[in-house]
Amino acid sequence: MSKIVTFGEILLRLSPPSHLRLTQATSFDLYYGCAEANVAASLAKFGFPVKFITSVPANELGESALSMLRSFGVEPVAKIQGKRLGIYYFEQGASERPGKVVYDREDSSFSMLRKGMIDWEKAFEGADWFHWSGITPSLSLELAELCEEALEIASKMGLTISADLNYRPTLWNYGKKANEIMPNLIKYCDLLLGGINESEIVLGISKQENESVESVFSNWMKAFPKLKTIVTTKRLRANASSNGVSAEFYNGKEFLKSKEYNISHIIDRIGAGDAFMAGIIYGLINWPNDHQSALEFAVAATCLKHSISGDINLSTAEEIKALMSGHGGGRVSR
Amino acid sequence: MSKIVTFGEILLRLSPPSHLRLTQATSFDLYYGCAEANVAASLAKFGFPVKFITSVPANELGESALSMLRSFGVEPVAKIQGKRLGIYYFEQGASERPGKVVYDREDSSFSMLRKGMIDWEKAFEGADWFHWSGITPSLSLELAELCEEALEIASKMGLTISADLNYRPTLWNYGKKANEIMPNLIKYCDLLLGGINESEIVLGISKQENESVESVFSNWMKAFPKLKTIVTTKRLRANASSNGVSAEFYNGKEFLKSKEYNISHIIDRIGAGDAFMAGIIYGLINWPNDHQSALEFAVAATCLKHSISGDINLSTAEEIKALMSGHGGGRVSR
Amino acid sequence: MSKIVTFGEILLRLSPPSHLRLTQATSFDLYYGCAEANVAASLAKFGFPVKFITSVPANELGESALSMLRSFGVEPVAKIQGKRLGIYYFEQGASERPGKVVYDREDSSFSMLRKGMIDWEKAFEGADWFHWSGITPSLSLELAELCEEALEIASKMGLTISADLNYRPTLWNYGKKANEIMPNLIKYCDLLLGGINESEIVLGISKQENESVESVFSNWMKAFPKLKTIVTTKRLRANASSNGVSAEFYNGKEFLKSKEYNISHIIDRIGAGDAFMAGIIYGLINWPNDHQSALEFAVAATCLKHSISGDINLSTAEEIKALMSGHGGGRVSR
Amino acid sequence: MSKIVTFGEILLRLSPPSHLRLTQATSFDLYYGCAEANVAASLAKFGFPVKFITSVPANELGESALSMLRSFGVEPVAKIQGKRLGIYYFEQGASERPGKVVYDREDSSFSMLRKGMIDWEKAFEGADWFHWSGITPSLSLELAELCEEALEIASKMGLTISADLNYRPTLWNYGKKANEIMPNLIKYCDLLLGGINESEIVLGISKQENESVESVFSNWMKAFPKLKTIVTTKRLRANASSNGVSAEFYNGKEFLKSKEYNISHIIDRIGAGDAFMAGIIYGLINWPNDHQSALEFAVAATCLKHSISGDINLSTAEEIKALMSGHGGGRVSR
Amino acid sequence: MSKIVTFGEILLRLSPPSHLRLTQATSFDLYYGCAEANVAASLAKFGFPVKFITSVPANELGESALSMLRSFGVEPVAKIQGKRLGIYYFEQGASERPGKVVYDREDSSFSMLRKGMIDWEKAFEGADWFHWSGITPSLSLELAELCEEALEIASKMGLTISADLNYRPTLWNYGKKANEIMPNLIKYCDLLLGGINESEIVLGISKQENESVESVFSNWMKAFPKLKTIVTTKRLRANASSNGVSAEFYNGKEFLKSKEYNISHIIDRIGAGDAFMAGIIYGLINWPNDHQSALEFAVAATCLKHSISGDINLSTAEEIKALMSGHGGGRVSR
Amino acid sequence: MSKIVTFGEILLRLSPPSHLRLTQATSFDLYYGCAEANVAASLAKFGFPVKFITSVPANELGESALSMLRSFGVEPVAKIQGKRLGIYYFEQGASERPGKVVYDREDSSFSMLRKGMIDWEKAFEGADWFHWSGITPSLSLELAELCEEALEIASKMGLTISADLNYRPTLWNYGKKANEIMPNLIKYCDLLLGGINESEIVLGISKQENESVESVFSNWMKAFPKLKTIVTTKRLRANASSNGVSAEFYNGKEFLKSKEYNISHIIDRIGAGDAFMAGIIYGLINWPNDHQSALEFAVAATCLKHSISGDINLSTAEEIKALMSGHGGGRVSR
Repeated sequence: MSKIVTFGEILLRLSPPSHLRLTQATSFDLYYGCAEANVAASLAKFGFPVKFITSVPANELGESALSMLRSFGVEPVAKIQGKRLGIYYFEQGASERPGKVVYDREDSSFSMLRKGMIDWEKAFEGADWFHWSGITPSLSLELAELCEEALEIASKMGLTISADLNYRPTLWNYGKKANEIMPNLIKYCDLLLGGINESEIVLGISKQENESVESVFSNWMKAFPKLKTIVTTKRLRANASSNGVSAEFYNGKEFLKSKEYNISHIIDRIGAGDAFMAGIIYGLINWPNDHQSALEFAVAATCLKHSISGDINLSTAEEIKALMSGHGGGRVSR
Repeated sequence: MSKIVTFGEILLRLSPPSHLRLTQATSFDLYYGCAEANVAASLAKFGFPVKFITSVPANELGESALSMLRSFGVEPVAKIQGKRLGIYYFEQGASERPGKVVYDREDSSFSMLRKGMIDWEKAFEGADWFHWSGITPSLSLELAELCEEALEIASKMGLTISADLNYRPTLWNYGKKANEIMPNLIKYCDLLLGGINESEIVLGISKQENESVESVFSNWMKAFPKLKTIVTTKRLRANASSNGVSAEFYNGKEFLKSKEYNISHIIDRIGAGDAFMAGIIYGLINWPNDHQSALEFAVAATCLKHSISGDINLSTAEEIKALMSGHGGGRVSR
Repeated sequence: MSKIVTFGEILLRLSPPSHLRLTQATSFDLYYGCAEANVAASLAKFGFPVKFITSVPANELGESALSMLRSFGVEPVAKIQGKRLGIYYFEQGASERPGKVVYDREDSSFSMLRKGMIDWEKAFEGADWFHWSGITPSLSLELAELCEEALEIASKMGLTISADLNYRPTLWNYGKKANEIMPNLIKYCDLLLGGINESEIVLGISKQENESVESVFSNWMKAFPKLKTIVTTKRLRANASSNGVSAEFYNGKEFLKSKEYNISHIIDRIGAGDAFMAGIIYGLINWPNDHQSALEFAVAATCLKHSISGDINLSTAEEIKALMSGHGGGRVSR
Repeated sequence: MSKIVTFGEILLRLSPPSHLRLTQATSFDLYYGCAEANVAASLAKFGFPVKFITSVPANELGESALSMLRSFGVEPVAKIQGKRLGIYYFEQGASERPGKVVYDREDSSFSMLRKGMIDWEKAFEGADWFHWSGITPSLSLELAELCEEALEIASKMGLTISADLNYRPTLWNYGKKANEIMPNLIKYCDLLLGGINESEIVLGISKQENESVESVFSNWMKAFPKLKTIVTTKRLRANASSNGVSAEFYNGKEFLKSKEYNISHIIDRIGAGDAFMAGIIYGLINWPNDHQSALEFAVAATCLKHSISGDINLSTAEEIKALMSGHGGGRVSR
Repeated sequence: MSKIVTFGEILLRLSPPSHLRLTQATSFDLYYGCAEANVAASLAKFGFPVKFITSVPANELGESALSMLRSFGVEPVAKIQGKRLGIYYFEQGASERPGKVVYDREDSSFSMLRKGMIDWEKAFEGADWFHWSGITPSLSLELAELCEEALEIASKMGLTISADLNYRPTLWNYGKKANEIMPNLIKYCDLLLGGINESEIVLGISKQENESVESVFSNWMKAFPKLKTIVTTKRLRANASSNGVSAEFYNGKEFLKSKEYNISHIIDRIGAGDAFMAGIIYGLINWPNDHQSALEFAVAATCLKHSISGDINLSTAEEIKALMSGHGGGRVSR
Repeated sequence: MSKIVTFGEILLRLSPPSHLRLTQATSFDLYYGCAEANVAASLAKFGFPVKFITSVPANELGESALSMLRSFGVEPVAKIQGKRLGIYYFEQGASERPGKVVYDREDSSFSMLRKGMIDWEKAFEGADWFHWSGITPSLSLELAELCEEALEIASKMGLTISADLNYRPTLWNYGKKANEIMPNLIKYCDLLLGGINESEIVLGISKQENESVESVFSNWMKAFPKLKTIVTTKRLRANASSNGVSAEFYNGKEFLKSKEYNISHIIDRIGAGDAFMAGIIYGLINWPNDHQSALEFAVAATCLKHSISGDINLSTAEEIKALMSGHGGGRVSR
């Protein structure tokens, strides 16, 4: 069974219960998660051995974040340092009121990671796959450099490498633009999750108005020859409570489209992309020659994530396959 | 006013709050209910004097199950024996994630009931109606025999008898198939709630592909000459959060169809069939010659059940009639 | 910045959590609010200096009602008297089960207010706008007289006056019909929120079957020459969980229609009209010559209120403007 | 088995959870209870057939109050009338912060009961015991007259009659003093729960400074020749979180003292006297010739009540007997 | 009535409910408070007009902190700046498990305050009293300088000045020791709350082993001639769930000791010192010539605070006076 | 660092919140635990590598039990079989109301374990210590035989072996008495936790009335020559809310007594013995020649457990050592 390593920050999420607004909360529900941690936990739930490389402080919040990961069977490899675990406050939206994230993640333990602090060779020992996302290099130049360090070593050690572009305009504020940093990191990747709106701003690859997705992705592959697969998700007819989802897959030859799901009642939208990412990794590992199935698994995974509270897709591979086979929410499973 | 007796098991239901999955629950909401208990409570809520025959253990869980029934005015008649109250864990679904029932009901007090343990003559004294369901005979041969004992006596004492087929494939596992047992019990019934998919598997009556509901039900009446009424419910465009409902009614002469309701936000789907059952009993008792009204009452009852947490339809007859008259959820009632 | 005064009762609202029915509640969530208090709080949230004139008892419930208002920056001006704070129990509806209000507001402190108890000159000092609603005169003749006292003085002092007709059939039960009382009060108003169904029953102005809204409102303006603006809201395709909303605006010359919003998941419908009222006041003050913008702001405000628990629209003006500009619930705001 | 009837009001109690103060509550826990209802429920829990005579409104709150009683097996006999169920807000105290009751019970359904409204002969049919308390006559002259009506009939029909003086200074405010009303009602009683501080103010019987309890009670028996038993409870070393309890018993001949219990952690003090009352009734019925045992049962009952949330003593007779036998809280019962 | 100004940081407190440890929390209860904010709110609860000078970020957390203060009638004067509201996680202790504070307050909005940012003249306009504490100068040199700026102006404007030494060893970590900074600030003060263990470490005044409290305080007064009153509190027989409290008062002539209270069940110990501080301010303003009463009020205030959840003493002056008069927790107040 | 293996059942614990009784619960808090699992988790919290050998069903409850263990870093080795996870309902006691356990653990997955099902050699590979308790052999003869199988192999492989007698009279009901089974298992043990009341009933070793603990333990050592250490705990002045604890230690030569702790407010008593057990294992491993320190660590551990919700001692070794050093609950740790 493939061994997978992911790397990134883990945050404490604080959310008012029952769709309350932040200003009316008298309590917060706690979750721990963030992009790459969510991918790690979902992959462990699928049964893979997974390591998660991160940094947390030597206090109860840091300990709880690692405990959560361990509860899934993820092996956390954490540098214990610094003073605080990053936080994000999340207010669930409803109908036309958008969900809202208030970040309070500066000066976290993770933000203090530097090149040389992580023994990547040891972390990658026996591993087959390395996953990271564009969140980490968006936080500081030092973290961007650390990503590069990881990518070089992973690459040398022969791991398959995947990335989620995960572009958040409010994060890239240390003086570099995403497209000054990311191309140098994406060049190591085999699999990419991204959207065509990120082409210019993240990858520095201009696109024509109305250019087809396939054409844009084809240009990405030209720019990054190591890239074998590009996937993208689509959110349709969205308000804060309901939307459709579908996804597309480009492998340099075929441009595949997934089934579209209608999600009529969103429980929690956070982590939907991470659920997709874990799904596509599962799919490519299990059906390396059946890209349509890999794609359908990933889109069914993201569909189910919308029905689950917290950042992490708690669906098993069996549940996702059941949805792929048409067994949706219409019947109680007894 | 008609006196009604129902017979069956009552279970403890344990459900995570707020659409959480079972694996993320740190607390469970408690409900007590199961098919025939739900029918009993709903009928008591409509104002009927109701007895519920069951068995529970001599502990706080058994006591609480009976207290719940008493709170509705149901008179429980319970053999106190055995060691445990049966449990079912219920995870609410959402959108394309199906609800999930995990049964833990084996070796319950109810499962230890045997012929001769219940004084049926006394239980049925002064009663007009007896209701049971296919859950009980699915649990063990002994319980199937106990059902037969009850049915013979109820029949002799002249009670109207109703049954809900309630076929659950995971339950029939004591070595008999449903259609080896159920026909012998259904033959006592005046009113049946079932679906045409249960024809072969429960009643042993084969049906043609694409055979009309009316035709199938007509065959059921031929097989079971005592049957005067067959009702069936339909779930339409269903996911775990929304569906339509309608129902049909066959009295040997007419085949009636109900209005269809669109339930856009399901609060709790469990017990929807039991709410229908109680509704049709109410309808047939109150409007013996107006089968359309009886049917409309029953389908409005099941519609409202979907908006109510727990197993039991907490709607009053007045609320159901208001919905029948077109006063749906669009206005706050002040 | 305009200073606004509103006048009315503030009630304790007791609601079962999680869509439970009143009869199954083991706890009630608390909110404090009622029509004019909701308008006051929303306007304070928009940044206006606001006073709220009311009466509460000298106990913890009265104190809490005032604290809630202060938390928004509203300055409560309350006569402390009497024995009880009025209550309303509110059961959230779902799909075809209507929400339900059970009033328990008789004999409240507010109901004991009489002419002469409030120093209106002081209350209106420096104020630009006075808002009241039809709830207050519906409660007793004495309160209707008190309204008139307030209106006369506000009028003399040159305040702009707005009213929400807010007709509740179950309230007008002290022997006078609404249309015997309300016209005498409406004659002081510049701005009115009402619906054409209230024409006869509240204002005593008959309307033709199928008469257009514009024509009815035109008649209202003839009857009440001081009226400059009439607004009305429309609820479309409503059940207890979802509806559309739109609104209309008549200024004696133009009849404007707003954008229509589809609210797919209602969190709390109570106070939707009050949110609209606060919105239209904001709009008319900020865009006195752009009635379409004022109307769009008000309808976006009422749309957002449906997504917020409790009686009060917790939306900021910026959030409402974002929705007006097309930034709905489809994207998480980071 | 003795059949018992109690008569009185049932209130909705609203309490902040977790020792929060009323002004900081965002939710209230619900309980239904009041003196005589608490006695009724405790006696039903002991296994007696019990009726509770009362009045509630035709709304969900009235229905819930009756459902609660039914859940214990109490048969409620309620006149359905009026507009509201009385309320009391209860703030739990802690250490030196006293618990606090805010009554909001005026104009309740119960307050509208009048002579002639209750069919006492029917209510008392087959009954052996009638219990009432001084709360009811404290509410209005009409209710005092209704008490007298009940007492006369109960007396004629040969029921044993018990009363709890239950003197609450804030209630007697309709123009009569307690000692103008109560003696005329106490004269019908066989069993009285009261304290010597109530001698003058409730019974109009003066007492000497430092007069012994036995001497005071002896005077009571002289004044009310029907009285056979007087019991009184003592609270020792009390703060809001802990106290000792003991009780005394006078039967005209002996003056018995109970064991003293130290209650180190009070969960809920409300209803402690009612638990004692139910205990002494149980004791006198079961051990008519062993007054010490009756007293010990009653004081163990009140001791256990302090450990139970809500107004009602949820202890079984077996649990109380276990405590009487020395099996206190020191060991987990498995 | 005296107008009071306090100055300091306000933090978000996050606490697991129900005595859970931080590592087992799935939700946090929210409170907003910190030393000087707690004093401000308590004084407002006593009826004083109070301003609180602080700084919060322009987000929902900052807004909520100010709303909380407003709900008490405190007028917040806040510089809106920076990125985050400081946090402290608080785990309630029990018996021998100590309560635990985990600070996450660095880089808060308040920490960015600098000299010149606050218009002290305007803030102190019409004010009679200024209160600050040793928390603020412990955070950074810049904040210590800002304190001095405030103290100079307050002093010039003739305000009475009080300080709570509030020494927290984990806070003074910017390179200066407390006794290098604090004496220069204490010299402006009229009233001081501190303990003799702080003599050397905070004030730089050495004390003899076994030196009496009176003697130490006498030395303080010599060192700081403006000081008129020194108060100190004592915690006795303490574990995390119970302790005794008493206090002492030195006015240069008399050394007064308060009554001692036994707090058998602590609900929340945080803010006990702030409750005392508000109490002594109330006492000195109301009974300037009766120092014993002032002291007794303050110690009764701190006693009651232990029974109240959150950082703020929600007791009214009447409740505190009732405890001073001997009406403790032994009786429910009805 | 020593590697430790424990073996036993893990149960789902269902407890009403807030000291509610089982019959009044509308929700249950969930915990997973049981004797040996609690020891495992506490040892992992101390930093030891720990394996826990057990059996759980292939459903969400089984999965959650393992996840909980993993969250502590315990490595579960579980045979996945059978239909149900055992349950125990636990009602917290208060003062003189004892806590109550209702077992519902029959027919669990664990109860289906048989000799040969577990690869003990693999489980014990590299391990230093094996811990089991008297719960397992009390459940069935087959489980007693499985214990023996484990003990033989552990013994051969040279592990140190510890046992907790954990005698529960309600469990030994399969036809064998404890003292027919346990001696054969205890003979393998190096360390025993038990009380002198268990001498006859569990070990079959008669004791004299008033025989000293030391003398009894000396007899145990004679009967079981492998035994090197016997420890016992004492509960003093116990009610359900408070008690003292101390412990004693016998090593064949010395009879040591621990400090006594007064636990004034018990949060959760379940698992206190398991906390002691983990503590003594920690102590003997870390201070093999300082038995007094080992004992003090264990008794401080059990003291802290009483302050923690759930079955597991969430205290770190540092926290326990702090209490040993006299830093109890009297001060908030900042």
